[in-house]
Amino acid sequence: MSAPTGDIGLIGLAVMGQNLILNAADHGFTVVAYNRTVSKVDEFLENEAKGKSIIGAHSIAELCANLKRPRRIIILVKAGAPVDAFIQQLLPHLEKGDIIIDGGNSHFPDSNRRFEELKEQGILFVGSGVSGGEEGARYGPSLMPGGAKEAWPHIKDIFQSIAAKSDGEPCCDWVGDAGAGHYVKMVHNGIEYGDMQLICEAYDLLKRVGKFSNKEIGDVFATWNKGVLDSFLIEITRDILYYNDVDGKPLLEKILDTAGQKGTGKWTAINALDLGMPVTLIGEAVFSRCLSALKGERTRASKILGGPSVEGESPIQDKQKFVDDLEQALYASKIISYAQGFMLIREAAKEYKWELNNPAIALMWRGGCIIRSVFLGEITSAYRENPDLENLLFHPFFNEAITKAQKGWRSTIGKAVEYGVPVPAFSTALSFYDGYRSEKLPANLLQAQRDYFGAHTFQVLPGQESETLKKDAWIHVNWTGRGGNISASTYDA
Amino acid sequence: MSAPTGDIGLIGLAVMGQNLILNAADHGFTVVAYNRTVSKVDEFLENEAKGKSIIGAHSIAELCANLKRPRRIIILVKAGAPVDAFIQQLLPHLEKGDIIIDGGNSHFPDSNRRFEELKEQGILFVGSGVSGGEEGARYGPSLMPGGAKEAWPHIKDIFQSIAAKSDGEPCCDWVGDAGAGHYVKMVHNGIEYGDMQLICEAYDLLKRVGKFSNKEIGDVFATWNKGVLDSFLIEITRDILYYNDVDGKPLLEKILDTAGQKGTGKWTAINALDLGMPVTLIGEAVFSRCLSALKGERTRASKILGGPSVEGESPIQDKQKFVDDLEQALYASKIISYAQGFMLIREAAKEYKWELNNPAIALMWRGGCIIRSVFLGEITSAYRENPDLENLLFHPFFNEAITKAQKGWRSTIGKAVEYGVPVPAFSTALSFYDGYRSEKLPANLLQAQRDYFGAHTFQVLPGQESETLKKDAWIHVNWTGRGGNISASTYDA
Repeated sequence: MSAPTGDIGLIGLAVMGQNLILNAADHGFTVVAYNRTVSKVDEFLENEAKGKSIIGAHSIAELCANLKRPRRIIILVKAGAPVDAFIQQLLPHLEKGDIIIDGGNSHFPDSNRRFEELKEQGILFVGSGVSGGEEGARYGPSLMPGGAKEAWPHIKDIFQSIAAKSDGEPCCDWVGDAGAGHYVKMVHNGIEYGDMQLICEAYDLLKRVGKFSNKEIGDVFATWNKGVLDSFLIEITRDILYYNDVDGKPLLEKILDTAGQKGTGKWTAINALDLGMPVTLIGEAVFSRCLSALKGERTRASKILGGPSVEGESPIQDKQKFVDDLEQALYASKIISYAQGFMLIREAAKEYKWELNNPAIALMWRGGCIIRSVFLGEITSAYRENPDLENLLFHPFFNEAITKAQKGWRSTIGKAVEYGVPVPAFSTALSFYDGYRSEKLPANLLQAQRDYFGAHTFQVLPGQESETLKKDAWIHVNWTGRGGNISASTYDA
Repeated sequence: MSAPTGDIGLIGLAVMGQNLILNAADHGFTVVAYNRTVSKVDEFLENEAKGKSIIGAHSIAELCANLKRPRRIIILVKAGAPVDAFIQQLLPHLEKGDIIIDGGNSHFPDSNRRFEELKEQGILFVGSGVSGGEEGARYGPSLMPGGAKEAWPHIKDIFQSIAAKSDGEPCCDWVGDAGAGHYVKMVHNGIEYGDMQLICEAYDLLKRVGKFSNKEIGDVFATWNKGVLDSFLIEITRDILYYNDVDGKPLLEKILDTAGQKGTGKWTAINALDLGMPVTLIGEAVFSRCLSALKGERTRASKILGGPSVEGESPIQDKQKFVDDLEQALYASKIISYAQGFMLIREAAKEYKWELNNPAIALMWRGGCIIRSVFLGEITSAYRENPDLENLLFHPFFNEAITKAQKGWRSTIGKAVEYGVPVPAFSTALSFYDGYRSEKLPANLLQAQRDYFGAHTFQVLPGQESETLKKDAWIHVNWTGRGGNISASTYDA
């Protein structure tokens, strides 16, 4: 058999897989394509892959035999058991130093596990987030690889070639250890849920309160796409609002309002709860999808539960101000969402002992992926300027932006509350902002209540120390004069 | 050896354990007390337990030997490994049909597991939630037992005797299968977080916007405790607001505003995300505790981030209206929180195949536990009247209450937004209400976006079916004219 010519192999010829292969071929790489249902391999070779530097494999053995050493194999299949199944099928055909790249939407603890298991076998595991959908995969995705660091020099070239570019820089860099790549992809997806929820709330307000037509809403998004909100999601929303069905009516209004979810946004919210970080906007975005799924119940509720709504003409006199205020609300809430996302990343790095590179992450998200935007360019700059920036909100650029947005943000929420339009993301963002900038929160009362009914103890506020309220002590007070003298313990019997 | 006289045994002589033992003894039961650190047994017998129908055991063997058949043993130790450890220690001394009751704050999946494992050994496992703190345990807790149904007739008498009573009815009934008891306790704790967060937000508004003194805030809570908000938590808040330190100043203001948490509220939020139910208020309550924990960061933020605040005198002219509106906001938000809690319970019953009895759960929470209130009496009545009630909000009592509360609720949130006071729980409750009563939510746009960038497909809105938009079909649209023709699949390679 002649010497192998494959630079990289890829298992999984659905949308994403095919497009990544074509992308790599366009960049001069020879790709070996494999699919469990091998007829798809032949179909692919006879159609999209025809005439390109793409080799078909009809077995795992053939796939591996065709690859140069160290072998680099991307697995792009359904997350979960199928990934482990393919890893098991590959192992007999691999040698130490070969590289397995899981490019699916795997949950990062699974990537942590696979990294360790393969390490023991001398195989280099890379868990890579991939974002950008079909088009991104084809022309330039965002790639977030993490895992065995020794693999990076062998895949950097291919990855950075096929990745999206932002001002010439590839939206792909080494993320970190073990499952860090999939972790950062998970946070990306959570932020994506947040960005989308904010856009939906804006659309809802323009429609229900502004009484804008779909075309007019499209115009608003078109304008916004030229300003601080310039981004892929705003752009596609413009297109969606303009899109008419064959009968000339907006197709959007014929779509069932029940959001699907593949789970990654949920993972981000759960991880935030586990790490104790207040990633409220993503939480509300996920819950909003859950609420949308209860279509039947909402329909029944709409007939029973009362409240304000705007019937007939819009009560808004100054439409331009309404739109400008809404833009500020969207922008400010977006800033909050990303600030929360990076707070989570910071905590994850601490908890999982990863070295996560904020400016690199921001750049990976700057292009190629679903959340790509001018805004992420600002975030990249901010972190490059100050890698130790404690919080995005402390950076002058975002601090000024949020200060400027205050009035419009609060005015927008005020109107939503008045006219009965749900704005869970806008309002949680504002509550977070007002809470975050509060030196004192009412949690002192929480602590007092917990001590009252459960003897859970509290600490003294710095500056209020005294004989009875000693610094650093855990204090229990007999609030009623009736309780016993045992402080809450951990019930070690 | 003489015939055993112990009706029930209890392992774990911390606060809760001792108090439950004393409670049972008061009700005429003979309790066998054991603790790993056996000196505590002697201390207990020489002090609080002296002269009562309480027997001390200095070993697991002695504990078991002193109990009538079937043996009933309550374990009240730190959740997790210690519970399994004690179960292992007990097994050699037990016989088929004996009953182990875990009364700690165990996570329900662990109770599911223990139920199955012990079932295989012929031992009846009961996972029971216990609520009411020290005082509740001593004089009447809320008890939520679930697990092996055959155990119920053997423990019903003791449990219902020592439980709190509400209008003569015990706040204790069989919850359901396996870990159902601990599940319901978990939801209780989540709701507790929600109730406490709402109270804290109300206190914050009275203080920061109303500029009320602590005594005046205490007066407000005292009044509220005689109305629709009549409850244990409102009552203790009144007491806390009135409580002065030795120097005559309110002790509350000397307490560090960093909330602790033992984790159960977090479990409820995570479970809601797993089951896909929008339990937003508990989610925000948990996240608020996380935010409060970032005291240092908030202090730095308070110097950098700007926004409205009330300096000097209160801008509120009509203080009584402000207080009345706030009462409405609290009440309405509370209704939402409980509606969400019961939605979660309903989904859990479906998912885990448990038969959960709503009126019984409401009654278990009506007295003894931390969330006990008149309000729960209304919920109990509502579910008794209509066990198949789809949602609390559909019941006339709550429907009317929320309708009446609209103006005050919206006005309160409007003021918080205007004056820069964080109200995550109040506002998420309102957003949920406005979303839940919306027949159409902007999730159609979410579906369009997901289809645009990921070919995830959508369904047609009922009533909008056509040749190209067929009923029940999953439709993909070529939004840009550029995409391929493959619909998103599950990447089965």
